[in-house]
Amino acid sequence: MTGTLYGIGLGPGDPELLTLKAHRILQTVPVIAYPAPDGAPSLARSIAAPHLPGGQVELPIGLCMAVERAPGQGGYDAAAPEIAAHLQAGRDVAVLCEGDPFFYGSFLHLFARLGADFATEIVPGVSSVMAAAACARRPLVVRNDRFAVLPATLPDEALRAGIEAAESVAILKLGRHFARVKRLIAEMGLTNGALYAERVTQAGEQVRPLAETGDTAPYFALILLYKGREPAILGHDR
Amino acid sequence: MTGTLYGIGLGPGDPELLTLKAHRILQTVPVIAYPAPDGAPSLARSIAAPHLPGGQVELPIGLCMAVERAPGQGGYDAAAPEIAAHLQAGRDVAVLCEGDPFFYGSFLHLFARLGADFATEIVPGVSSVMAAAACARRPLVVRNDRFAVLPATLPDEALRAGIEAAESVAILKLGRHFARVKRLIAEMGLTNGALYAERVTQAGEQVRPLAETGDTAPYFALILLYKGREPAILGHDR
Repeated sequence: MTGTLYGIGLGPGDPELLTLKAHRILQTVPVIAYPAPDGAPSLARSIAAPHLPGGQVELPIGLCMAVERAPGQGGYDAAAPEIAAHLQAGRDVAVLCEGDPFFYGSFLHLFARLGADFATEIVPGVSSVMAAAACARRPLVVRNDRFAVLPATLPDEALRAGIEAAESVAILKLGRHFARVKRLIAEMGLTNGALYAERVTQAGEQVRPLAETGDTAPYFALILLYKGREPAILGHDR
Repeated sequence: MTGTLYGIGLGPGDPELLTLKAHRILQTVPVIAYPAPDGAPSLARSIAAPHLPGGQVELPIGLCMAVERAPGQGGYDAAAPEIAAHLQAGRDVAVLCEGDPFFYGSFLHLFARLGADFATEIVPGVSSVMAAAACARRPLVVRNDRFAVLPATLPDEALRAGIEAAESVAILKLGRHFARVKRLIAEMGLTNGALYAERVTQAGEQVRPLAETGDTAPYFALILLYKGREPAILGHDR
């Protein structure tokens, strides 16, 4: 009997926003793996830490986060056979994933390498998009609203088209694209009512109007756009 | 001291997909409220049931789910002052919400009526969109993908524009719009690779190719569109 590969969604950062299912698996799984960028502390590992009983085998996945075409692929190439060896020996392996494993998650790199050969189970998690709206106390979408999630890494034209085709929008992966995206939002007349969120549900959480931000933002920050919708809720169609 | 109004995201249906935070609050809160459509069993109540210690005051919110302009508003009009009375007496009230409270959630109707007058905390939950992708073992979005969530209640033109402006799409609230939306997807040449999901993570879960469905679907079913993306993951841009 080979082991099961788990992709565990850990949620947005607060260890209490793990699901009961993720918690149960972390309490019993003999091997955990997690991204450990550039030797820096692993955010995924730190979210899971209060839930680990100790004594597990740990496989940090070394990632080079420098700006390049396909960062970190070497890390996954090295980790995949290590994980496969544990699975082949009958040991379950839990891969720790910030947010949700299938929503821009780095788990995809391991799923692509191992998903065809081993039993795999995905445990969905709370996305930072939903957590940001909760922290901001601003409902994301209601009634017939269309919702779009757009990576800031896209060129202006693709971002503009995506923003135009939705009532509410989350823009992720800001990092070095922040100033450009902010300018685009201003050109579209949508700065009013837009929110900036960073480290939601974690220490150092920041949620504030986009108009009150500077020109830099970390990669794991996001913008929520509300296109002039009134906060009052009057009903919903079926 | 007035009480706190909690909007509790319960996740997609499996009681084990509650967060630890939702579980803690349900274990201690003196009053719970939940939608109870047309006297039918409340799905939200049934997801929370294994986590309730018993002895709480329960406020079912009667909703008329018939097709009308603003269904159920009378239920919220009646429930809001009842909830307000508990809050004013210093008792916390947890409103049980399927999925995430701010993502097309009916909690919005209570938030609009009470959010300005009482301390409110939103506990985000796992969305059925992420859960459907997990059950289907099909990653939702990777790298620079744009993601759109569209209610099936929209007219064809708005749906088409939303689908065109994204790489992956979730279409919610199918119900009586299912046959029309299926036809639109076929016209756009996107039936291949599209998935249908119903009751994800619940008893009776169904996930199958859209091509293998009939012409009816319940309201709480969804379609996932993958616009020709290859499943292999090659890297991600920063």
